[in-house]
Amino acid sequence: MKLKQVSVELVNSMNKGTLMEQLGIECIEIGGDYIKATMPVDNRTHQPMGLLHGGASAALIETIGSMGSVLLIDIEKEAPVGVEVNANHLGAVSSGSVLAKGLIVHAGKRTHVWQVDIWDQATDKLICTGRLTVMIVPRS
Amino acid sequence: MKLKQVSVELVNSMNKGTLMEQLGIECIEIGGDYIKATMPVDNRTHQPMGLLHGGASAALIETIGSMGSVLLIDIEKEAPVGVEVNANHLGAVSSGSVLAKGLIVHAGKRTHVWQVDIWDQATDKLICTGRLTVMIVPRS
Amino acid sequence: MKLKQVSVELVNSMNKGTLMEQLGIECIEIGGDYIKATMPVDNRTHQPMGLLHGGASAALIETIGSMGSVLLIDIEKEAPVGVEVNANHLGAVSSGSVLAKGLIVHAGKRTHVWQVDIWDQATDKLICTGRLTVMIVPRS
Amino acid sequence: MKLKQVSVELVNSMNKGTLMEQLGIECIEIGGDYIKATMPVDNRTHQPMGLLHGGASAALIETIGSMGSVLLIDIEKEAPVGVEVNANHLGAVSSGSVLAKGLIVHAGKRTHVWQVDIWDQATDKLICTGRLTVMIVPRS
Repeated sequence: MKLKQVSVELVNSMNKGTLMEQLGIECIEIGGDYIKATMPVDNRTHQPMGLLHGGASAALIETIGSMGSVLLIDIEKEAPVGVEVNANHLGAVSSGSVLAKGLIVHAGKRTHVWQVDIWDQATDKLICTGRLTVMIVPRS
Repeated sequence: MKLKQVSVELVNSMNKGTLMEQLGIECIEIGGDYIKATMPVDNRTHQPMGLLHGGASAALIETIGSMGSVLLIDIEKEAPVGVEVNANHLGAVSSGSVLAKGLIVHAGKRTHVWQVDIWDQATDKLICTGRLTVMIVPRS
Repeated sequence: MKLKQVSVELVNSMNKGTLMEQLGIECIEIGGDYIKATMPVDNRTHQPMGLLHGGASAALIETIGSMGSVLLIDIEKEAPVGVEVNANHLGAVSSGSVLAKGLIVHAGKRTHVWQVDIWDQATDKLICTGRLTVMIVPRS
Repeated sequence: MKLKQVSVELVNSMNKGTLMEQLGIECIEIGGDYIKATMPVDNRTHQPMGLLHGGASAALIETIGSMGSVLLIDIEKEAPVGVEVNANHLGAVSSGSVLAKGLIVHAGKRTHVWQVDIWDQATDKLICTGRLTVMIVPRS
């Protein structure tokens, strides 16, 4: 089971007028079993002390897994539904951008599980790690 | 241990120029052991299918707990650091707004744990439930 | 949607020869939307320092939700499958027993979500809180 | 920061008279940044349908991380406290044994985060993945 190899421009065009645009999230690479995206660390994703908001990281994890699951299913007949998301925040970032890589660790008929790691692009330091559980439901 | 009873205007003024402004999150009530906020369901918080993005709910949970922990500590001497966030998505919302209530379930010297529930304001249906673990660290 | 009101003796008889017997977990009450169980804090559930092992609490959460989901479905036609479990450990216990209450917070056609809290029975102090996500799958 | 290279016999001797003995968990290898353990899949760890109980997997994750953190700190002056544990169950096992590997992904002064994966030893299939957050507290 491999991710459909569509262009990142296509994926990003679907994110116009959504939370992804609001937070500046951009898909940059689609592999056979992974997907990568970047997110800026600026006023769009800061908390009040000027650091990356942990909720921005969680939103990035949920985005990565959801985008990836769309590329694993027959989108005409099925839809991915996020069921559970979790994240450990491991380090602080105040500026620049972060890179997230989501790896599919379970691609079942009914559920997908994504392992997502996020790094500070300036230092390559791991700053967040989490998972997204997606349920695949038939379109009614 | 009770949350400092400051005005919601003060809390919201600290959220200017941050993710909270970007997603339209507003604190609306501060109680002795809880804090409430609202978030719009519109292009700022949608995923591509026009539903509330699960990552917006996760960001709301992280926001609620972080705002609450600031009101439980001596902010001159200590800082709250989000350690782990998790959320179960229970239902879909396509428009209007959601209401989140964060209840402090553990207010220790070193950690706080917040239980956060999110309801669709139009139907009062529970659409998300999660927790945030916060570590309290001395300012250096 | 209500839990089938069977006897706790019946539930406990199904737990013979399983992890539940090994850890001393016993179902003590079944309500319309909740289920309760107890677990001893002794050599069966201790970690090396003589405190309740956090893994015992996690196992109790998974047990409570799984037992509860069995009572919400048509067990001839469907089976509950644990998908995700999580827990925050809030306090230490060294002896006696703990009481867990699992409340169903989402009883969908495809998924159940249980909110489970665990208290020290000697002090009534909340020592753990967590959730279990269960997927309901048709029997093949 | 590396795990102390003690013998697995020493680690296992500390687990006598605890949940680890009850569930048959045995440490089998200690590396510089990881630790491995096995657990039987039999009446000690089954749920009523004869499959590995998800709670046994969660207990194994909590055990792995806790054992590992003990080997990363000065145990005379500090103690590890499990804060949060989570797990996704990815597949069923009915007999034999499982192998768990815990990798330290964050070894901070105040917190450790362990990424733990569990495989069916007969098939090498990944059956569970999760994390444990540990707080390091000074002994009083």
